[in-house]
Amino acid sequence: MGGVAERLRALGLELPEQGPLRSYVAAVRAGDLLFVSGGGPQKADGTFITAKVGADVDMETAQEAVKLSALDCLASVQEELGDLEKVARIVKLLGFVNSAPGFVMQHVVMDGACDALISLFGESGRHARSSVDVAELPMNIAAEMEMIVEASE
Amino acid sequence: MGGVAERLRALGLELPEQGPLRSYVAAVRAGDLLFVSGGGPQKADGTFITAKVGADVDMETAQEAVKLSALDCLASVQEELGDLEKVARIVKLLGFVNSAPGFVMQHVVMDGACDALISLFGESGRHARSSVDVAELPMNIAAEMEMIVEASE
Amino acid sequence: MGGVAERLRALGLELPEQGPLRSYVAAVRAGDLLFVSGGGPQKADGTFITAKVGADVDMETAQEAVKLSALDCLASVQEELGDLEKVARIVKLLGFVNSAPGFVMQHVVMDGACDALISLFGESGRHARSSVDVAELPMNIAAEMEMIVEASE
Repeated sequence: MGGVAERLRALGLELPEQGPLRSYVAAVRAGDLLFVSGGGPQKADGTFITAKVGADVDMETAQEAVKLSALDCLASVQEELGDLEKVARIVKLLGFVNSAPGFVMQHVVMDGACDALISLFGESGRHARSSVDVAELPMNIAAEMEMIVEASE
Repeated sequence: MGGVAERLRALGLELPEQGPLRSYVAAVRAGDLLFVSGGGPQKADGTFITAKVGADVDMETAQEAVKLSALDCLASVQEELGDLEKVARIVKLLGFVNSAPGFVMQHVVMDGACDALISLFGESGRHARSSVDVAELPMNIAAEMEMIVEASE
Repeated sequence: MGGVAERLRALGLELPEQGPLRSYVAAVRAGDLLFVSGGGPQKADGTFITAKVGADVDMETAQEAVKLSALDCLASVQEELGDLEKVARIVKLLGFVNSAPGFVMQHVVMDGACDALISLFGESGRHARSSVDVAELPMNIAAEMEMIVEASE
């Protein structure tokens, strides 16, 4: 079924370019676990999806935002591991959805990231996850994603 | 002092039945660490405690909600490990309390989960933890819990 | 360049004394990973910085609050490992900034912790991180910090 890079292309997805990170790094590996810095919804043109979900954008755009945030995390994984083929398992996601008051469908928003990861990694993309709201995010981005990955040695 | 299952019964607690999880899984094991999907306050009748803590419910109900959320995590642990006796240590909790504006006692709410885990696992239940607020949670559940467990062998 | 304790002194920083933790512990080690309980902005006099960032305090005070929260985590690390020299790597920070509505500079606030950790640990202090808002925190503290550390040996 080809590699992850090939499936990214087949799905019309691409990993964002990452800007300079100042004083922190994209991901840190400790043993076989890779802890990834929070990813954001960077679009192909380098700008970010900014919004309060539930007020400014519809569900489809919100799901796109968490998918892009997951891809931003994968760009960090690739930077650290050199190759996405070294992902043994997507272990855990923690998704923060920038929500308008009264919006309570964070778990449905998160499906946008889950489905993309399973498309890309198959069973190895099947992860544990939590989905919560935040009332504000840096620069008003619509979502922020944490990811823990297990690397194959 | 008997096993964990026995202490659950002695305390009048039971693990919730888990619904279908769509695209994610209840927990992922990487090495000896088990990362558990966010647990919610599911009651014995299958419904959830929904509330803004500090406005809709009292402290006792809020503590019950985080205790039920921890039990939901344990149901995931049991599903993955097959047996709660394989828990070597409850490593870490991150509790999200669905809080009304001005409510700042999230750490007291969290004691409801901590105490239950120590009753169930003894010293192995003594964990690191963080307690924060969220302004909204999926379906307005009163709390959501993340758990990391160390498995034996 | 001397040890971490020496650099703490040279920077005029000190680890806070930790109060009793009731039912949880300061940090749990699982393999080489240390998962640290949420740290708060405790000042030298034992009181905490309490504030909604973006309304009650300026950026400098907010950065001081996350720095103090990181030092509180390090006090937990020292308690568990016995010696900060046993820190092989600061792996991951998750910073919760107690934010006023409309405040979206959580990532700039977090630099206060990042820079201090690099000053203290050099390259081993360079970590992955996420920065999010919360609308409320326990006792209205201005920030709360989660930390994951890799221990040597």
